[in-house]
Amino acid sequence: MSSSAAPAYRRMSVEQRRGQILAAAVDLFGHRRPEEVSVDDVAAAAGVSRPLVYRYFPGGRQQLYEAAVRDSAHALIEGFVVPARGAPTQRLTQALDRYLAYVDEHAPAYSALLRGGGVAETSRTEAIVDEVRRGAAEQVLRHLGVTRPGPRLALMVRSWIACVETASLTWLDQERQPPLPELRDWLVDHFTGLLMVTAATDPQTADALARALPLEDGDSPAGRLVARLAPLLPAADHLMGPAAP
Amino acid sequence: MSSSAAPAYRRMSVEQRRGQILAAAVDLFGHRRPEEVSVDDVAAAAGVSRPLVYRYFPGGRQQLYEAAVRDSAHALIEGFVVPARGAPTQRLTQALDRYLAYVDEHAPAYSALLRGGGVAETSRTEAIVDEVRRGAAEQVLRHLGVTRPGPRLALMVRSWIACVETASLTWLDQERQPPLPELRDWLVDHFTGLLMVTAATDPQTADALARALPLEDGDSPAGRLVARLAPLLPAADHLMGPAAP
Repeated sequence: MSSSAAPAYRRMSVEQRRGQILAAAVDLFGHRRPEEVSVDDVAAAAGVSRPLVYRYFPGGRQQLYEAAVRDSAHALIEGFVVPARGAPTQRLTQALDRYLAYVDEHAPAYSALLRGGGVAETSRTEAIVDEVRRGAAEQVLRHLGVTRPGPRLALMVRSWIACVETASLTWLDQERQPPLPELRDWLVDHFTGLLMVTAATDPQTADALARALPLEDGDSPAGRLVARLAPLLPAADHLMGPAAP
Repeated sequence: MSSSAAPAYRRMSVEQRRGQILAAAVDLFGHRRPEEVSVDDVAAAAGVSRPLVYRYFPGGRQQLYEAAVRDSAHALIEGFVVPARGAPTQRLTQALDRYLAYVDEHAPAYSALLRGGGVAETSRTEAIVDEVRRGAAEQVLRHLGVTRPGPRLALMVRSWIACVETASLTWLDQERQPPLPELRDWLVDHFTGLLMVTAATDPQTADALARALPLEDGDSPAGRLVARLAPLLPAADHLMGPAAP
């Protein structure tokens, strides 16, 4: 806004100009609720005229919003990709760190997009949200060494991703409590617990667990969870024997 | 539809007539997607005239839909109430049985309502969905003996409820696989696992777990889970010792 219009009107390729307008839209829609962003805001932020915005985005605000959502979705999906090295729960921690940093920084946009029902929600924005979920599921399954999940494992991964979204929204609602690193560690523990209980009845998940456990150590998130769970186990001793009479 | 109109026009009180139309709406909206139900359908199913429907529901289809959603929501919330007797995981099984029977029987309506974005979605229907979630959370907390949940326990309960919804939708999507009793048992196991990992870091949840465990036995869902988890534990032995060098 404070930049003079002159440099922005330098000779730019069509692609560059579109990218400049899109970058302004991503920034604005990423930090406000969609109904709080106008074409004029985008034009001002990009340092271009309103007609020029319409030349690149004839659909106006709605098209700008969808392009911005798509751009953020791709950034989120890229953030899920972490190297297949070290303890799987450590990798999950790294991917969640990026995701939750996005939630923290883009709270109004994230809430508006996931709560849905807003003015700017369309079947296209919903499809983009689903694309992010699929991207997250693919990465989780990749680190579990699974390419064709059966119904139980597919259910598990999708459910956990829904939990991450709900936990993120709830965390924003309850004034960002508990602190972000605790939220992240709890989501990782949640995944570990869910993997264990699902492995107890699903052979495919049990195989994935058997592959993952040797990669964990006492210092990994799963190792720290096991150490904290150990003192709770004696209270469940009566469940290990035969059924109570 | 096949009933003759005559008996339906018997002298009824205003309340009875409204109830008759509402019952028809609950039945129709409960078994179809909202856009597939018209005021004429409701009038025909109730055996009354279209103007009579409008006399009781001047807002037409939208008002009928919201009234039907509200009615189903109250039935769902009542279904969550089970006696505070026996193993807590057994009580959860009972409440989930009723919820999942509703999902199974009202699949198109359930999907339309929870997926949102449909023609009939309004802030009022969203508020009703939230009321059902709050009702479920209250009952879960009641059985855990908690009246004022801290942020960690509140997050846990809300996340699990979101998992139940996502698992229900995924289950409908993947042609109702796994079988309903397996889905239900897995959701109960999920809750048990989540309670345990949350107890590992949150004192309030640890207290709730300590109260719940003595009420479980080897025959309860938690008992059966522990028995199935036991053979998996040796693979995690290396996590119990000191950190790997």
